Amino acid sequence: MAALFEHGLFAHVVVLITLFLFSPGFCVSPSSTRPNILIVFADDLGYGDLSCYGHPTSESPNIDKLAAEGLLFTQFYSANSVCSPSRAALLTARLPPRTGVWPDVLRPSSTGGLPHSETTIAALLKPLGYTTGMVGKWHLGVGKNQTYLPSNHGFDSYYGIPYSTDMCPCLKCFYPADPCWDTCDTRFTSCPIFQNSTIVEQPADYTTIAQKYSMEGRNFIARNAKSGKPFFLYYATQHTHFPNFAGKQFRNSTRRGAFGDSLAELDWEVGQLLEELKLQNLEKNTFVFFTSDNGPSLFYQVRGGMAGLLKCGKGTTYEGGQRVPAIAYWPGKIQPGRTRELASTLDLLPTIVNLVNGTLPEVTLDGYDIRSILFQRSKSPREVFYYFYSQMSPKYGVYAIRYKQFKAHFYTQGYILSGLFNHDGDCRPTAARTEQNPPLLFNLDEDPSEAYNLGNDPEYTDVLNEIGEIKQQFEAGLVWRESEINKPKDPSVEPCCNPGCHPFPTCCSCTKFGT
Amino acid sequence: MAALFEHGLFAHVVVLITLFLFSPGFCVSPSSTRPNILIVFADDLGYGDLSCYGHPTSESPNIDKLAAEGLLFTQFYSANSVCSPSRAALLTARLPPRTGVWPDVLRPSSTGGLPHSETTIAALLKPLGYTTGMVGKWHLGVGKNQTYLPSNHGFDSYYGIPYSTDMCPCLKCFYPADPCWDTCDTRFTSCPIFQNSTIVEQPADYTTIAQKYSMEGRNFIARNAKSGKPFFLYYATQHTHFPNFAGKQFRNSTRRGAFGDSLAELDWEVGQLLEELKLQNLEKNTFVFFTSDNGPSLFYQVRGGMAGLLKCGKGTTYEGGQRVPAIAYWPGKIQPGRTRELASTLDLLPTIVNLVNGTLPEVTLDGYDIRSILFQRSKSPREVFYYFYSQMSPKYGVYAIRYKQFKAHFYTQGYILSGLFNHDGDCRPTAARTEQNPPLLFNLDEDPSEAYNLGNDPEYTDVLNEIGEIKQQFEAGLVWRESEINKPKDPSVEPCCNPGCHPFPTCCSCTKFGT
Repeated sequence: MAALFEHGLFAHVVVLITLFLFSPGFCVSPSSTRPNILIVFADDLGYGDLSCYGHPTSESPNIDKLAAEGLLFTQFYSANSVCSPSRAALLTARLPPRTGVWPDVLRPSSTGGLPHSETTIAALLKPLGYTTGMVGKWHLGVGKNQTYLPSNHGFDSYYGIPYSTDMCPCLKCFYPADPCWDTCDTRFTSCPIFQNSTIVEQPADYTTIAQKYSMEGRNFIARNAKSGKPFFLYYATQHTHFPNFAGKQFRNSTRRGAFGDSLAELDWEVGQLLEELKLQNLEKNTFVFFTSDNGPSLFYQVRGGMAGLLKCGKGTTYEGGQRVPAIAYWPGKIQPGRTRELASTLDLLPTIVNLVNGTLPEVTLDGYDIRSILFQRSKSPREVFYYFYSQMSPKYGVYAIRYKQFKAHFYTQGYILSGLFNHDGDCRPTAARTEQNPPLLFNLDEDPSEAYNLGNDPEYTDVLNEIGEIKQQFEAGLVWRESEINKPKDPSVEPCCNPGCHPFPTCCSCTKFGT
Repeated sequence: MAALFEHGLFAHVVVLITLFLFSPGFCVSPSSTRPNILIVFADDLGYGDLSCYGHPTSESPNIDKLAAEGLLFTQFYSANSVCSPSRAALLTARLPPRTGVWPDVLRPSSTGGLPHSETTIAALLKPLGYTTGMVGKWHLGVGKNQTYLPSNHGFDSYYGIPYSTDMCPCLKCFYPADPCWDTCDTRFTSCPIFQNSTIVEQPADYTTIAQKYSMEGRNFIARNAKSGKPFFLYYATQHTHFPNFAGKQFRNSTRRGAFGDSLAELDWEVGQLLEELKLQNLEKNTFVFFTSDNGPSLFYQVRGGMAGLLKCGKGTTYEGGQRVPAIAYWPGKIQPGRTRELASTLDLLPTIVNLVNGTLPEVTLDGYDIRSILFQRSKSPREVFYYFYSQMSPKYGVYAIRYKQFKAHFYTQGYILSGLFNHDGDCRPTAARTEQNPPLLFNLDEDPSEAYNLGNDPEYTDVLNEIGEIKQQFEAGLVWRESEINKPKDPSVEPCCNPGCHPFPTCCSCTKFGT
């Protein structure tokens, strides 16, 4: 060192050290080291649908690879048991009553949507220099003048169908022109594909949706790799929501029939995105999180997915409705394994924002920063999870609460999407809302299928009291925002490539789109 | 080479080649290359009980390692849904009606057992130079003068309790002296541990059973490693059958309560055996197969195990009764992975006998050689599986048949061990025998939970007809051997360390045993 000083090289060394500290890969300069974020959100994929979660005949090599090389969660919860409330919560870290995206889901003719006052992950990352893109199913509103589309929620770009593929007439589902298993919802316009706020395809060709989505996703990744800007990609596939559909490559490709083909295409989409990350040498600088918006739609039987060992499915506050597959993947940063720690889609926003040294919005958040689970494989900061029924209302409030390994049901209710003829009568729509007093109590660590009620056992009175207090405190502080979904419907807001045409809605079908 | 000939070295080279060919590790001399065989048979462990089969909170690092480095079967069947018939079938490759080990299970006072005319894997391997040992739960009869114990069925040595741990009064289940959850069957003598035909402990101390079994297993392996003889070890743990019990190390060690502790000890046993194989450098020359005798005993709720996504459990012909975890492990020989191919405990005998170049017995076998699955990962030779109800009889014959992906139920019936209060009424004992005409039909590849009956769908008439023909042909050729289990009970055959003592059976408790 003495020699260096003598030769007046000290300043030089300082410059070199500074350059080194701020070079990519060293954790000092936030702007240069901010990781890319990729969330892959599946649609109605159940806890029991994947081979890596115990399905005997499913095949999903790409997702299984994520699981084998990433961290698989066995106790991960979507924020709600149906689509719109769940998606709003993922993007805002706020429970449905707070976002106003309740009860049930938005329709093409809904005039409401995710309020502009809500802050999404995209809106938080954008000012930090992130390019923010969304591909796929939005389901947080279109509304008048497309006011609720992703572009108005912090996303630089959007490509996709803004709701579920069964909310439009189902025309053909399998290559080359096989009809769908049913007609889906024929009251609305055909499914549109938006590019930003412009319809670029209507009706959407279901046999090419996944191909287009994955291409958009890959291009987005490639563009950002070139520009060197960090990116946030929220990729919400339409799979495996009913109706099952798939492109040429996946038609009759699996042992699980139409559902299996749909899942195979979802898996391929995941593979496409991972391939692009690898190609762009971004694998080691991208936090990938794969999960699902809610449990399986058992109403559609083998076409609706499976909850595996969990009770009931979509629409209910039983585990099958809200516990979902979830895998975190980040080679070199997240060690492969399984975690039994509690976590939720609500936790993604705080985790990601802290990960990129961002600032959390100054509103009540229902999520936790779970980096401790991801990177240290230590305890979850989450001890409590609140289950709101799909048809929630302030009158009945929270239906169930998980506290550590215990779950108390204050109300139980079946739902049509959990199966008209489910062998478990509790899941059926005929299982009317029932106040449980004392609450049903399950030890989910010992009894994940919610089969053996402990609520009448005096040994568990203390646990019930504790959960009762948690409920009281939580509900005392909970302000229900006005429901966006209950706002009046208006067919004029339904996406139509040919506005003002007749006969509506079938006329909303265009063969030619702008260059 | 010319130089070698010139120097008269040709003969020398031949000798060297010969020595090389017959040296261990080269596949020419059968006697020197016969692999060791280790079957680990769990007790009442359900399809959904292991982490590697999708249980969210189970922990079984050693079995999971087997699964990660071995071949995991997702459609593997035990030969029956209760213990004795299943175990007889595993050892003989013959369905219960042929072995006479039907219906239900043998009791300590049973005078019958596995007929001596039946040929076990041990009896087939012994003449090939194998040392054959059994450790653990036999459950194929004791009888007068211990005539049915393993020593009379081809095993050189035996150490273990000859039936289930709940067939004796349950004294203490957890270290140091915690009582069991119930009293088990107090009509019989206390559980004896046999060494060959001699009782060496009575009552057996449940808190040390697994320790002793694993030590016996390790010693057996070590002895054979020293002698250089190939071995067959049939290690039938008492775990995780009710009552849950465990030694010091595993008491309160898991999140799954008493069942989890029992499973943890089972996992430890597996780890002990693998460790000994490694220590003796035998890992690469030992075919290890891990599976379970039948589905979970749902009657005992969280203490009885889980069938996961499968319907019902022990005692029934639904999938939960007979589809079990199964892992084949042989580093270097069996590639890691999962197989969806059909296989059964019935297939172990023919597979093993062919593996060691042995000769199959000249009787009707119900098993297939599944080496194609193990080593080439190709199609299973098995297309059909026959389900006999636990309380089977010639009058009703086979209850259900699986043919490829389809399963037809000709009769359905619940069973007490599938849960008195199972939320699925089909599983309960109150679900009386029902002839299904047309049969219930399920596509297990699409619907492993047997939830959606296709039997009334005209599209499947051909499949039902085909299965009907298979049934007719099978039953026409099936000779029911006289039931061994229906033979009269006799308390005098109950194992007693103090024969002729009073008051029987409690007097069968000894503190001192011969040196």
